[in-house]
Parts: sequence; C-alpha cells; structure tokens
Amino acid sequence: MRDKNGHHMSTDEFRRWGKAVVDWIADYQERVESYPVLSRVKPGEIRAKLPPAPPEKGEAFDTILADVEKIIVPGLTHWQSPNFYAFFPANTSAPSILAEMLTAGLGVQGMLWATSPACTELESHVLDWLVDMLALPAVFRSDGTGGGVIQDSASSASLCALLAARERATGYAANERGCTGKLVAYASSQTHSSVEKAVKIAGLGRENFRLVEVDNRYAMRPEALAERVRADRNGGGKPCFVCATVGTTSSNAMDPIAAIGDVCRQEGLWLHVDGAMAGTAALCPEFRWIQEGLERADSYCFNPHKWMFTNFDCDCFYVADRSALIRTLSILPEYLRNRATESGAVIDYRDWQIPLGRRFRALKLWFVIRHYGVEGLRFHIRRHVELAKRFAGWVEEDDRFVLCIPPPLNLVCFRHRGGDDVTRRLMEQVNGDGRIYLTHTLLDGQWVLRFCVGQTYTEEHHVETAWRILQETAAKLEP
Amino acid sequence: MRDKNGHHMSTDEFRRWGKAVVDWIADYQERVESYPVLSRVKPGEIRAKLPPAPPEKGEAFDTILADVEKIIVPGLTHWQSPNFYAFFPANTSAPSILAEMLTAGLGVQGMLWATSPACTELESHVLDWLVDMLALPAVFRSDGTGGGVIQDSASSASLCALLAARERATGYAANERGCTGKLVAYASSQTHSSVEKAVKIAGLGRENFRLVEVDNRYAMRPEALAERVRADRNGGGKPCFVCATVGTTSSNAMDPIAAIGDVCRQEGLWLHVDGAMAGTAALCPEFRWIQEGLERADSYCFNPHKWMFTNFDCDCFYVADRSALIRTLSILPEYLRNRATESGAVIDYRDWQIPLGRRFRALKLWFVIRHYGVEGLRFHIRRHVELAKRFAGWVEEDDRFVLCIPPPLNLVCFRHRGGDDVTRRLMEQVNGDGRIYLTHTLLDGQWVLRFCVGQTYTEEHHVETAWRILQETAAKLEP
Repeated sequence: MRDKNGHHMSTDEFRRWGKAVVDWIADYQERVESYPVLSRVKPGEIRAKLPPAPPEKGEAFDTILADVEKIIVPGLTHWQSPNFYAFFPANTSAPSILAEMLTAGLGVQGMLWATSPACTELESHVLDWLVDMLALPAVFRSDGTGGGVIQDSASSASLCALLAARERATGYAANERGCTGKLVAYASSQTHSSVEKAVKIAGLGRENFRLVEVDNRYAMRPEALAERVRADRNGGGKPCFVCATVGTTSSNAMDPIAAIGDVCRQEGLWLHVDGAMAGTAALCPEFRWIQEGLERADSYCFNPHKWMFTNFDCDCFYVADRSALIRTLSILPEYLRNRATESGAVIDYRDWQIPLGRRFRALKLWFVIRHYGVEGLRFHIRRHVELAKRFAGWVEEDDRFVLCIPPPLNLVCFRHRGGDDVTRRLMEQVNGDGRIYLTHTLLDGQWVLRFCVGQTYTEEHHVETAWRILQETAAKLEP
Repeated sequence: MRDKNGHHMSTDEFRRWGKAVVDWIADYQERVESYPVLSRVKPGEIRAKLPPAPPEKGEAFDTILADVEKIIVPGLTHWQSPNFYAFFPANTSAPSILAEMLTAGLGVQGMLWATSPACTELESHVLDWLVDMLALPAVFRSDGTGGGVIQDSASSASLCALLAARERATGYAANERGCTGKLVAYASSQTHSSVEKAVKIAGLGRENFRLVEVDNRYAMRPEALAERVRADRNGGGKPCFVCATVGTTSSNAMDPIAAIGDVCRQEGLWLHVDGAMAGTAALCPEFRWIQEGLERADSYCFNPHKWMFTNFDCDCFYVADRSALIRTLSILPEYLRNRATESGAVIDYRDWQIPLGRRFRALKLWFVIRHYGVEGLRFHIRRHVELAKRFAGWVEEDDRFVLCIPPPLNLVCFRHRGGDDVTRRLMEQVNGDGRIYLTHTLLDGQWVLRFCVGQTYTEEHHVETAWRILQETAAKLEP
C-alpha cells in the first residue's frame, strides 16, 4: 500500500483489488458445485501451464487473478464443496475467512506475549471458553495448572505431548542427554499415523511403539494395554506415553478413555487423547459420552479446522500441567528476553510449540464462536450427525452394501458385498464422475468406503444425491 | 455463505463484510504510524475486556469488527509499522495479503498431491523459480535429486534437516530403534535457539550439541569445528549434523559456508545452512557472497516471511537429496493411499514436513513474485540495506555510541559508550515513548541494541526520525 513507491500496490489499488478478491471468493463459493470435486488434472499438468522463469518486471494484478481462475482452479480438489465426503472435513465459514483476512492484514507475530499481547491473551481466553463449551475438565483451563494453545495440527499436538511425556518420564533428562531407547509408547492399531511419526521424530524408535489390540468396534482394549505395559516393564522397557483416540480416522472408533486412563494413572503414564476429528461433537451434551474419563488425561486436542467451521490451521491443544510442557520446549536466548517474560506474569506461547513464530490464529476462533454462538454451532453439528445416520440407514436397507459399524457420529463406513475389487471400482467410478468425492480405508483387512458428512454447506439433498450416485454406479458395476 | 440457513452468513453479507474488512485493513495501514509501535497494555488487560463466557446466541458482524478496533488493536505490537526495527522484520505486502485471502477462501488441504494438485505443483514451481532468482545451487531444484518445500518456520526446517541427518548417519535406524545418544550436532555459539530446540526434540540431547567458537565478527571458525569433530570422534561420539548460519539473529554474522562445507564433506556430516533472516538478500547479485559455497550444503532455508514481503508462515526449505528427507518423514496409512501417490509421479508434501495438513501457502509467494517482479524485489532489498548502512554511518559519527560491527546487510548492532545500564535504559525509554521499537542482544557479554531495517514501508525519513529519537533520548540520559 502507500502510493509513493512505484513497486508497491497503492492503498487505493488494495481497496479495489481486495474487494475484487472478496467477490471472487463469494462467486467461487456460489459455483463450487459446478466443478468436479476431485481435480481431474494429470501429474505435471499445472506446472506445464506456468512459465519456466519468474517475471523480471512486475505484472498487473488482474492478470494474476485471471491466472488463478485459469491455471489454479482446475487443479483444485474442492474441500469446500458440499459434495466433499472424503478423508475428514476441513470446513470453513464466512466469519473464519474474514478473520483470516484480518490476521493477514495485521501481520503480527505472537511468539511472545510482548510481541502482541492481544494475540496471546485472546488465544488463552478463547481456549478457556472452549473448555466450558465442550465441558472439558476444568484442569485444562489456564486459570489453574493447565492451559490451551493453538497448534497447526493434531500431528504437532501429539508430538508436543509425547515430548513432554518423554521428559517427565526421564526427569527431564532426555532433553539433556538424549533419548535412551528404552522408552515405550502405546496407541491402538487404529491410531492416526502422526503418532508413529512423532515416536520416530522424538527419538523413541518405532520398535518401541506398541499398537494395542482393538475390540470389534475398533476401540482400544484397555486390558490389552495393561498387559503390554506389564510385558514391557518385565522386558526392561520404560513405558511413558499412551495416545487414546476419540474418533479414529479410519472408522471414528472411540477408545474408552476412562478405562485407559485408569491404566495410565496406575502405571504413571502420560495419557494424550486425540479428538482431532470428533472432538467438536462435545459442543452438544448428547455427544459428550465420547470424552468420558477425560479428567484422567494429561493432554487433549481437537481440531476446529476439521469440524468447527474454522480455517486450517487451528488445532486446540490442552495440557493439565503446563509446566511440564513449558519445561520441555522452553529456550530463552538473550535476543528474546524482555521484562514481561521475566515477570512470569504472562504466557509466551513459543514455549508451547515446536516453531518459534506464530500467526494470530485465535482471531478466527473468536469470530466463529461469536458469529454462530454456541447454539448455532450445535445446530450444525447435530445436523451433520443426523445426515450421516440417515445415510447409514439407507446403506443398511440396501442388500448390495454392508454397513461396517453403526456410525457413532458423522462418519459412515460401508462396503460392497461383492468384495474389495467391486468396492474399489465403485469408489473410483464415483470419484471419476466428479459429482461427489469419498475415500477409503481398510477394516479387518477389507476395503471400506468412508462417507464423512461435515462440510459447512452440506444439506440433506446433497446426501440424498450422493446416495443416488452410489446406487446408480453400483447398479452399473453388476452384470 | 448461502442464504438458506439462519446460522450461516449469506453470500451477500459476506460480500458486504468482506469489503468492510478490506477497507478496515487499508485504513489500519494508513494510520498504523499513529499507534505506539510496542503495545502498552499490562498483562491481563486484554482478557479483562473479554466476557468470561462465550455467547449462547450468534452476534452481529459489526459488533465483532468493532471489538477488533476497541479490544484487539490496543493489544497489538505493530509489526507492520514502518517504525518497527525490533527482532527481525516480518514484512507483508498487498499482493501477499490478497493471496492469503484467497487461500482462506479456497480452503484446500495440500497434504497430498491428489488433495489439490495445484497446491503442490505451484509450490514446487515457485520454489524452483526462487532457486534461479537467488542463484542457489541447481541441485536444490525439483527436476534433479533435490527440491524445495514451504515450512512454517526456520525452526521446523532445522528440525527436518536434523532428522534427515540423524537417519542418514544411522542408516535410517534411529527411526526404527530410537536415538542412540552418541550422535553429535554442531552450530556456532551465535546460532538461533531453534537448533538447540531441534537437538532436544530429535532425541540427541543438549549434551551432544556443540557450540563452536566464533571469530571477531561472530562467524563460526571452521578450524574450531574440525577440531571439535575430531575430539568427538576420538571420544566415541558420532558427529552427524552441522548448522551454519548466513545472517545470525543477534548480529547478522555470516558463517563461512565453503570452509565449513569442506569440513562436512570430509567428515561425512549433513550441512544445513540457515539463511532465515538474510537469505532474501541473494536476490541481488552484489549480496550473493553470503551464500558462497552453498553447493556443499545438504539443505538450506530462508524466510520470505521475514524479508520478502510475504506473510508468515512461509519458510522455503531446500534439500539436495529429497529421498533422504522423504524416507525420514514418510508414513503411508491406508486411508491416505491413492493412485497418484502409488504411481511415484507426484510429490506428496506431507512427507517433507512434521505435520500432515498444510495450507495453500505457495499462492502468496506466487503473487508477491509476480506483483513485484524480480526487479521490484531487488529494488526494496537494496533500499533497506542502503538505509541500514546510512544509519550505521550516523552511529559511527556519534561519540556517544559504538558501532559493534560493520553491518553486512540490514541489521545494525550498536551500544552506548556508557555501558550496559545506559544502553538498556536507552532502549526502554525509546520503546516506552512508542514512536519506534527496537530490541537488544548480548555480544561479547555486552548489551547491544539491534536496529533492523526491513519493514515494507520503511523510508529514509523513518530511519532519520528513529536516529533523532535515539539521539534525543541519549541526551536526556546523560547528566
């Protein structure tokens, strides 16, 4: 902005182009259903449209925006289409997008309290609000021993939790002397791959990561956990960390936190609970059973950037004892010293995460909660669950399909009776058709389709259409 | 958006409020100099203005936006003020902000090529452009064995580099069996604190991290490195990783990469070069001496979100051998399998980073490069360096001050002759006055002020005013 420098965009131009971009986004949202949900481009197709060399001289903004339309849009898989049922939702909303605009416009760094006090304090405050909104254990509030922080993702939250567990188990010696190789971590066989990745990053080694057996609903068996912990102790291992999941990625399985928590307390293990995908459901009292026993956890996370209408990146990560986390991740070089930090009266969030820098991400959570109100958020969560259950009902009534498990919330897992090959072909034909997009997993060694209802604008008629497309495609697959 | 649901903001409302937010950002930029650069709020002051409980019912958007003005703005430290000289720049620009708006509006996930091919391909492409723009070694281009990826920060880049080094040194066994405790990492005593943090996270342990001695310009002494590596080998340690810095945070010191690289090649160590703060300078041929010898590096990073007019988060991380990085960080659960990944013809960036999810961050780099052109970017970098050198000249001419080191680029380190206490009081009074903001470090045990010129809109008259404020304040400090 500023008009003086030839190379900068003037304030007037920014106003003009900013409004053009707002209209472009609104137009995009209005026509998003006209695109195939899964992008149809071939590898290399987008790059082939881009000039091999960067421009020497600056280009006009309308040229750039036109290229977004021409080059970028065909290469998008439309996560914000109401016909997106793949992976997990990454839903956004108008208030969240508006807040992201402000975050970009303000361009502040929230690494220390002093580098923008509002960035830190709004974050602590909104994360305390969420403790109340979700009826999480009060120990996670920042006015006690705990507190919440926004991480980029549940992967990073798991890593931070594992590191704090590693340090607590070693008397904070692994940070100093290195990881001994005898620490052992546990999760169910259905746990998200990021936990195995964290185990590798933190230097524990995959051989010291136990995949605990699950029951017929794909939930961790606490007695199997207890048994494995005993066996490891007998073998000279040092159990330190358990990750339980409420809402696994594959099937939305709910690990029984209370019973797992009992094992962890008894054995002195750090319990991290990963509610990335399903945690938002606890906005509604009728779904709070998923987090029963959470007061036994040392840390917890859930992702507003999945199912709470908030742009990625926004994972809410809570710890019961913030001092363990801070002691694990804190480093204070001279160039970051300041009176506020030394007073001990403030939170410096760079000590709660892997990177140093951080964006003003609390703004979008604040906007979303205020725009919808608790009531509005509940309304949409209930509707998604209701739509998923209705879809599951249709699957059950159709002889060609098997419902793999009653959907606990908004994810339906089903397969074609014809076996893996038919199920896979069904998915590929449906995704190739482009009107909807869904993905798969393996359950008990079988190919299973996952239908996850969670996009902001998915309505009943979208789900009905999706079911019709699946039925029609299945009909064509049969001889 | 969509008008049908009471709880969602309609498209028309989004258009209206989006434009209001664009105007708000433009107004903010126009009046940013009217605020004290460093926020004056006391700990807890922002939270005290926020209601203790979240709203049950949704609120009107104008109320929310008004609260940004009333509650948030006083709690900001204005990183986008042209009078911000603290820490490091985190400069933004109009095209970058416009791209961030689009990123938020599109709301796509770039974890896999398939989840939005344009997100991945634009990133590879623009990072290849930057190899050419900065005259980086061609081995970092994606059409050879290497490639670039956007990380959230240089901290994460260092961690990824260290992990790949750890795995390469152990034949990829640390991931499997855990970190042995005998691996040793090296950096200069001036290296950014994030490298020590990475050493702890990766399980090497701080005791196995060597702070190599520096010369009188605070640059790593290659012969001291060689000596320490020898000593560690003799002591049974397994040296694996060296981090050299071009542009240290404290003083912009430039480690001699070529000589360090020779040691690394001879000893088989992974060389990571951290150009977070200064790397952008290489846009200009006359500053490319800072990266002489970079062809000996295994990995490199620099931060467009510091000095290249691009919003945080945007660290460009390059590796010479992408297979080492991918093998270190890759995990492929069933629910992420897809034909494109299995074909081997695409890049899946989730294997190049710690988290799984990722925003469409390449868009802002593309916009910035196209808006300014290589020529425009060079113009601003040169001007910042020129202004810093002019400021350094004034410091040198003033008997009350000592210029600690000739500024290699845009960071000036100086102190008051009166000693630490006077220097510290000078800084506190200047920052309290609010017209400018600068921070400090320690060099040779002495308190030093850091004056970093890099905000997008900093002009000659701003730097002149800053110098006048420092002179006036210094005059008042003397008896």
